[in-house]
Amino acid sequence: MSKQVVESVGEGVSDFEKGDHVVPIFNGECGDCECCSNHLSSNKCSKFGVDPNMKVMVGDGRSRFWSKDGTKQIYHFLNTSTFAEYSVLNSACLVKIDSKFSPHLKKMTLLSCGVSTGVGAAWNTANVQPGSTVAIFGLGAVGLAVAEGARARGASKIIGVDINPTKFSTGKAMGVTDFINPTELEKPVHQRIREMSKGGVDYSFECAGNVDVLREAFLSTHEGWGLTVILGIHPSPRMLPIHPMELFDGRSITASVFGGFKGKTQLPIFAQQCMEGEVNLDEFITHELPFEKINEAFQLLIQGKSLRCLLHF
Amino acid sequence: MSKQVVESVGEGVSDFEKGDHVVPIFNGECGDCECCSNHLSSNKCSKFGVDPNMKVMVGDGRSRFWSKDGTKQIYHFLNTSTFAEYSVLNSACLVKIDSKFSPHLKKMTLLSCGVSTGVGAAWNTANVQPGSTVAIFGLGAVGLAVAEGARARGASKIIGVDINPTKFSTGKAMGVTDFINPTELEKPVHQRIREMSKGGVDYSFECAGNVDVLREAFLSTHEGWGLTVILGIHPSPRMLPIHPMELFDGRSITASVFGGFKGKTQLPIFAQQCMEGEVNLDEFITHELPFEKINEAFQLLIQGKSLRCLLHF
Repeated sequence: MSKQVVESVGEGVSDFEKGDHVVPIFNGECGDCECCSNHLSSNKCSKFGVDPNMKVMVGDGRSRFWSKDGTKQIYHFLNTSTFAEYSVLNSACLVKIDSKFSPHLKKMTLLSCGVSTGVGAAWNTANVQPGSTVAIFGLGAVGLAVAEGARARGASKIIGVDINPTKFSTGKAMGVTDFINPTELEKPVHQRIREMSKGGVDYSFECAGNVDVLREAFLSTHEGWGLTVILGIHPSPRMLPIHPMELFDGRSITASVFGGFKGKTQLPIFAQQCMEGEVNLDEFITHELPFEKINEAFQLLIQGKSLRCLLHF
Repeated sequence: MSKQVVESVGEGVSDFEKGDHVVPIFNGECGDCECCSNHLSSNKCSKFGVDPNMKVMVGDGRSRFWSKDGTKQIYHFLNTSTFAEYSVLNSACLVKIDSKFSPHLKKMTLLSCGVSTGVGAAWNTANVQPGSTVAIFGLGAVGLAVAEGARARGASKIIGVDINPTKFSTGKAMGVTDFINPTELEKPVHQRIREMSKGGVDYSFECAGNVDVLREAFLSTHEGWGLTVILGIHPSPRMLPIHPMELFDGRSITASVFGGFKGKTQLPIFAQQCMEGEVNLDEFITHELPFEKINEAFQLLIQGKSLRCLLHF
């Protein structure tokens, strides 16, 4: 959906018009459910929150897609279904982009997921403060966006951890100040980080989706106030590798979905901040390919050679 | 140490005088370590934080106690060692009580541990708001102090959970509005609590020290913003029974030590609030016994018949 243009508007939709430039969001904001209306600090939407098992439109429980021959139903995915030239979304899952930003619409695709998630995790979930110290486990697009968000907030030390050494040069552009490659280390990563940061960092971010990495991230923070934010998707059935008494050391752990951003309310402001240079989006789109080469795009991602690859229809 | 009076002052101690009325605190506040000086929101002290393995005085690594015949060293416990007529404490582990409160010094012993822990968990750690909903698992002195703290903050619903039905009448005096006895329930406790509180409470407190109870407490909170605070001591080696992805539902979990109070800085203010009736201490001292009957006091506690039993020398 690289054009990101509203093609037509359904009955009862008043906040969009044909031709509007938009960004789709997988974690919607309906504005009137128990969560949306009552809690300013939460971006969970009871109706349009991210749900990998939701395969239909929320409103009527039906799909909008069929195979070309009209015999086979095709289902929706993550509220957006944007691996398609045309898609049908609920208006709760679309954010209008100010027309003055239209020349940069390509970059705005980044706000749909990874970059908002990373920057928002640093800003909204962790609330990184000027002069504070940060460790980021996993320097993919999300981890590097955390670094960019922490840099923008004035963090004094941003330690990037990744087993792929090529991530280290990429990371510098996003504010990473120190690097650790765990495969080159003879001690546990958390021990090294605590040496580098006077007893532990203020904030650590787990962007790898691995519980062993998560435990290192947890132990890397300072006793008394350290906060670990989970961003990685954890497919393993393993539970949190933390004993209840370990939380008595004053460390906390939480997770961040879509960086804590309320999409419809806050993404227009975030887009403005990006356009004003507060956050630098330029480094994140490393490749562009025609949609037919989507498998190649996935390979680049799996091999750690790309951050974000834009697909054109 | 029911008299709680300073008998003598060691070299270099300037904040106490002989005759001062005091409350001992197991979680000290030195005022100048990395934690005490840098983080207003943390009550962890690097030097005098609670440590069950610390058996000596922090300053010189030695004990101050010997057996009557002078042959056997007796060690310290939790910075205070107050199961004794006379004890030696570092000044970081003592709080001076304003002499105008001396007539109520007996009640002030409650501020040394359980009541401060419970009330502080509601005030400092969870920051319970007026009109919010609370569930408390385990209605011992700590759990009931959470209720008292939540009541003082204006919580609209305070659900107490305990398998001992006598706790229910006691709880009413501390603000508990609704009761659940899990042994009389045919569904999981969290399911019942979610029915009673429009999808889950804003805050839950685990005061039982049991990981299965902890999971119920976690699931009892509302998706999007629910916070679970661990107060129970967990002796089992079992890890947190929570999957990393479950934190993506917007629920958080943390622990509270000494209710998040910085003892020396904040307990004098808390004592004032108790004396002004903002928090009611009267119901917590259910028994008084001579020190010789300490084992009887423990039996009362184990049997759930007492909240706090004051021991007199």
